[in-house]
Amino acid sequence: MVVPFTVALYTLAEARAINPAQKNRSRAFILKEVMSLKTITFSMTTPLIDEYRKKASFDVNTLRNIIDGEEFVEAKPQEDFAKALAAIDALETFDQGTAARYFLHANVFGSAVRSLGTDRHAETLRQTEQNEIVGCFCLTEVSHGSNTQKMQTTATFDKGEFVFHTPNIGAIKCWAGNLSHSATHAVVFAQLHTEGRCQGLHSFVIQVRDMKTMKPLPGIAIGDMGEKPGDWNGVENGWMKFDHHRAPLWTLLNKGCDVTPEGKYVTSFKSQSEKQSVTLGTLSVGRMGIIMKGANACILATTIALRYSVARQEMPVFEYPLQQYRLIPYLCGGFIIKIFQKRFQNHFVEYMWRVMSGEKSEELAEMSKEIHALSAAAKPVATWMGIEALGEARRACGGHGFLTCSRLNDLRESFDPSQTYEGENNMILQQSSNIIFAKLKEPHTRTPMGTMNYLLDTPKQFSGFSNCIVEDVLSAYKYLIRHLVKTSMRDYEKLKTTGKDSFTIRNEIQVHRAHTLSIAYGEHAIIQWGLEFVRDIAEQKSKQVMQRVLSLYSLFVLDKHLATLYISGYCSGPEFGDGIRSSLRLTCASLAPDAIGLVDVLAPPDFILGSSLGAEDGRAYDRLMEVFLKHENESPPFQKDLANFLAQRSNNNSKL
Amino acid sequence: MVVPFTVALYTLAEARAINPAQKNRSRAFILKEVMSLKTITFSMTTPLIDEYRKKASFDVNTLRNIIDGEEFVEAKPQEDFAKALAAIDALETFDQGTAARYFLHANVFGSAVRSLGTDRHAETLRQTEQNEIVGCFCLTEVSHGSNTQKMQTTATFDKGEFVFHTPNIGAIKCWAGNLSHSATHAVVFAQLHTEGRCQGLHSFVIQVRDMKTMKPLPGIAIGDMGEKPGDWNGVENGWMKFDHHRAPLWTLLNKGCDVTPEGKYVTSFKSQSEKQSVTLGTLSVGRMGIIMKGANACILATTIALRYSVARQEMPVFEYPLQQYRLIPYLCGGFIIKIFQKRFQNHFVEYMWRVMSGEKSEELAEMSKEIHALSAAAKPVATWMGIEALGEARRACGGHGFLTCSRLNDLRESFDPSQTYEGENNMILQQSSNIIFAKLKEPHTRTPMGTMNYLLDTPKQFSGFSNCIVEDVLSAYKYLIRHLVKTSMRDYEKLKTTGKDSFTIRNEIQVHRAHTLSIAYGEHAIIQWGLEFVRDIAEQKSKQVMQRVLSLYSLFVLDKHLATLYISGYCSGPEFGDGIRSSLRLTCASLAPDAIGLVDVLAPPDFILGSSLGAEDGRAYDRLMEVFLKHENESPPFQKDLANFLAQRSNNNSKL
Repeated sequence: MVVPFTVALYTLAEARAINPAQKNRSRAFILKEVMSLKTITFSMTTPLIDEYRKKASFDVNTLRNIIDGEEFVEAKPQEDFAKALAAIDALETFDQGTAARYFLHANVFGSAVRSLGTDRHAETLRQTEQNEIVGCFCLTEVSHGSNTQKMQTTATFDKGEFVFHTPNIGAIKCWAGNLSHSATHAVVFAQLHTEGRCQGLHSFVIQVRDMKTMKPLPGIAIGDMGEKPGDWNGVENGWMKFDHHRAPLWTLLNKGCDVTPEGKYVTSFKSQSEKQSVTLGTLSVGRMGIIMKGANACILATTIALRYSVARQEMPVFEYPLQQYRLIPYLCGGFIIKIFQKRFQNHFVEYMWRVMSGEKSEELAEMSKEIHALSAAAKPVATWMGIEALGEARRACGGHGFLTCSRLNDLRESFDPSQTYEGENNMILQQSSNIIFAKLKEPHTRTPMGTMNYLLDTPKQFSGFSNCIVEDVLSAYKYLIRHLVKTSMRDYEKLKTTGKDSFTIRNEIQVHRAHTLSIAYGEHAIIQWGLEFVRDIAEQKSKQVMQRVLSLYSLFVLDKHLATLYISGYCSGPEFGDGIRSSLRLTCASLAPDAIGLVDVLAPPDFILGSSLGAEDGRAYDRLMEVFLKHENESPPFQKDLANFLAQRSNNNSKL
Repeated sequence: MVVPFTVALYTLAEARAINPAQKNRSRAFILKEVMSLKTITFSMTTPLIDEYRKKASFDVNTLRNIIDGEEFVEAKPQEDFAKALAAIDALETFDQGTAARYFLHANVFGSAVRSLGTDRHAETLRQTEQNEIVGCFCLTEVSHGSNTQKMQTTATFDKGEFVFHTPNIGAIKCWAGNLSHSATHAVVFAQLHTEGRCQGLHSFVIQVRDMKTMKPLPGIAIGDMGEKPGDWNGVENGWMKFDHHRAPLWTLLNKGCDVTPEGKYVTSFKSQSEKQSVTLGTLSVGRMGIIMKGANACILATTIALRYSVARQEMPVFEYPLQQYRLIPYLCGGFIIKIFQKRFQNHFVEYMWRVMSGEKSEELAEMSKEIHALSAAAKPVATWMGIEALGEARRACGGHGFLTCSRLNDLRESFDPSQTYEGENNMILQQSSNIIFAKLKEPHTRTPMGTMNYLLDTPKQFSGFSNCIVEDVLSAYKYLIRHLVKTSMRDYEKLKTTGKDSFTIRNEIQVHRAHTLSIAYGEHAIIQWGLEFVRDIAEQKSKQVMQRVLSLYSLFVLDKHLATLYISGYCSGPEFGDGIRSSLRLTCASLAPDAIGLVDVLAPPDFILGSSLGAEDGRAYDRLMEVFLKHENESPPFQKDLANFLAQRSNNNSKL
């Protein structure tokens, strides 16, 4: 695992040169340090943060082991795998750009060749694993982001070869990471033309640069897309334009289909949708990682802002209830989304394993749809919360949060595109509700992961709080989801009578209805799985604090649906709304003594966190001064010019 | 006005060198172009955006004149002033950093000397106006941002001079723009010590650098605070530490107070609060400008995103109702906040004029409080909406919105600190509710600007919609505000019985109560003044479209309070909530044909907008390609190393 890592890091030093803020983070530094994770020791130097540490009602190391899972503690034989996972985790929080370059080469490009290709691509696969080539993944085109079937690049059979061509500006491949300067090979999606007709979208693995000169091959133009903010500036997001570029027939990734030397198209797929479901896995793997980005954003944001909030000796800003209210819910979000993502990833790995092993069951088809619906809902929910958390953390740190040395704005820039790649959040929410609507037409809604089981139940109106607020929140969600299903479908039927097509109608029922439905479906699943996780915690103190963490997350996300719950008829009068909000305030206040301890559970070590405000020792002001003193009494060249300018003005005026 | 402008721009070229993204915006370029504003002509080249332009129900130029006000059309004698205002406006949308440097020298430093000083500061004032010196304003200290009375820098009388001293790290002056490398003079706030005791916070104007060498004077250390994102990186936000620095007695800005050569403190102020109210004006002037930043952020965000939304020839994303819903409310926000800010600024100028002319009436004291309450509420409301707009616009442009050439992330970074400076938004909201609570103890709540007149009325519950949705929204706000006043005060009294001090109690009633109250108070005033502005529009087509613009803004901001309205008992059942939300969707849809025309009313010219996606001609894809083609077939030096690395790996593996 260490070897492909090196390739991903290869151009880091150069890429970083573009962004002066990152200059000091050198490749050697990462390689040396990144393997020494999870060995956090607290240096008890500053009284105040340590005072807050002592307030925690639980043991930090115990809870960390519960959240990280057993493998880190007991699974000795897999220690290398665990180390590698920790390295990827660390790289994600340290620099998402480098993480992406590694992931795009080894996982996205590599996985595509592995899962869409056959034996004849074994040599390409070996070269990928041995880092003899650098791969990139070309799907998106300039004017088609989220609709894969509309791609316009063509690969036309001609005299025993494929001819790749870009018919217009809008069909130029773009956003492919690693492409601009480094990639030697690419997985390319194109419309396959042979036997005089288009056979649909297919994937190919082609060489794009000469291995010695690194110049693009004939018929290929490649370039960078220009500057981007944050970590992504060094990712080499490139564009590629084909002008009748020729490649051999074996470049077709031919699992389930092929083109013979005579140009005959053959396929073992029974339907278009069966072909698509093979591609699905390759496209969905990214979303799993992005859900974790939402958790990471919450964790980094609140680590920095909460530690800074206790840095001031007299009356730390942490003591203001509003400051707690602004930050602690996002800390809870970091925990609950992380817990959800780990379970979801396990399901996904199981699913992929069954697909790879050739299983073709009804249940697996169901699972494919459920994974699609859930990832399309959870990715927006997680990433929006992460971006919100980073914005709120910056504001909660006041002006000092705006300094680059706080890393908060840098983090927001770096996490920002997570809302867009692998499916723009609002677009994929629509996919989620479409799957739910289709499911509702079936006789039952039981699903392999159980996230839709309740869809046909008739939920009850609010009649008072139970002794478990999370169960109360889940009940409200079930009613809300039922209400949104009903209003979406009512308006769908109403619009159908006007003669509009289903594409238009689905777009017209998004606002306040199908869009909210998908969000609520995702949040319900996250809370449900959180509840099941917390129930299974054996150690009592960890369990108790995690119950409150889950409660606060649940109340915080439900609060945004309160108005719709009133409109739906779930509740009336002040009881429910007041009850939810006072629980919110009380749970938040009850977690205040645990907040710094909870931060310690999830926070990366200081050199990964890279924030002057958020260091573990709580000495934010000393670290700020270190930054300030670097710039003491500077004398840039223009000062002389300015002095001359002012003197000249003064002379001119005295002459008048 | 052109002259101080030059000083502000003086170091721009150097400052820009820090940020490569800005390199191409040279000083000469700005100076040449910035005066040629408001001469927009449309080049009718691309069909699609022009198709959308034709859909507008109103005349763009007529509406622009209505929004900009008569002075630009009729006031020929003030043409220079109008040009200067336009230049500042343009500079604000072009580069807030440069605008800030100009403003800090001429307006903040200059105004402080003018309004807090006396005749003996006339020469300093002349030098400021003639740009013979460069000024900065030093109030904030490292560990004290928003609480001015807690400042710790001291100015102690000693042998006929003041000795300035920084007692500890937390008392170092910071965030002073222009200070790091350029400022020769500074207005400094310090605790004045003489006659053996502290006389409270006073202001001084002192020289900080040698005019020839530009080195800090003895006993002064100055430095930059380090890198910041966006436009603010070139602002020279500096820190200053005093080590027994000596300055003459005349440096005290001595309006209403003085220290004699013998060290005797004399004052004509009758009370501490009278002294504070003199300083108030200087501190409040900034907030006016920041409210406009909120409007500018909305305008720039929606100009870029809406024009890009109609760029794609087949099925522009603008046609999706969700896309319209994500953007058009913020466009309306730009209009309504701009209208509000102009009226508020007129009130403020009148107030300042009366203060300067020595008026000391009951009404003026009332106006001072109302200005404070309203600016403390409107600044958060405006800037939060602006930041939201920029985030939503970036997302609505998909991946291409993330490219630096879209300018959207850059704008978000540049507007981000508006939420913090001149009072952190959440902190100043508390000031607003405190003034409201105090007002409620008086026999009536009539105020000079009329924004609190309704506070003691007993508003009615919802009983059905009228034929004016804006009036309906205002009625709901009145009920909401009354409810929030009641719950805040109820909880205040409850907490008082527990023996807590009023500072703590005021903090504990913020979440869901006093905090929301201030926001609602600000939004109500913005809508009310919007309504009065729209009522006065004579031209019918402009009036009709502006009625819908105001409706959409009003519905959009009220929607966020729907849950609280249900909890308050204002409404029950689905009617009100469903009514508000369906009006929201319908009004938004009704504005869709006008959206591109409305953008044209407020959008700055292309060279100021500086976005590849948002250009007036709608040719976003062509402009993107211009950026892409700059990077075609680049061959950075590391490519050779990478080729060698890959070849070596290949050789090693073939040897095995």
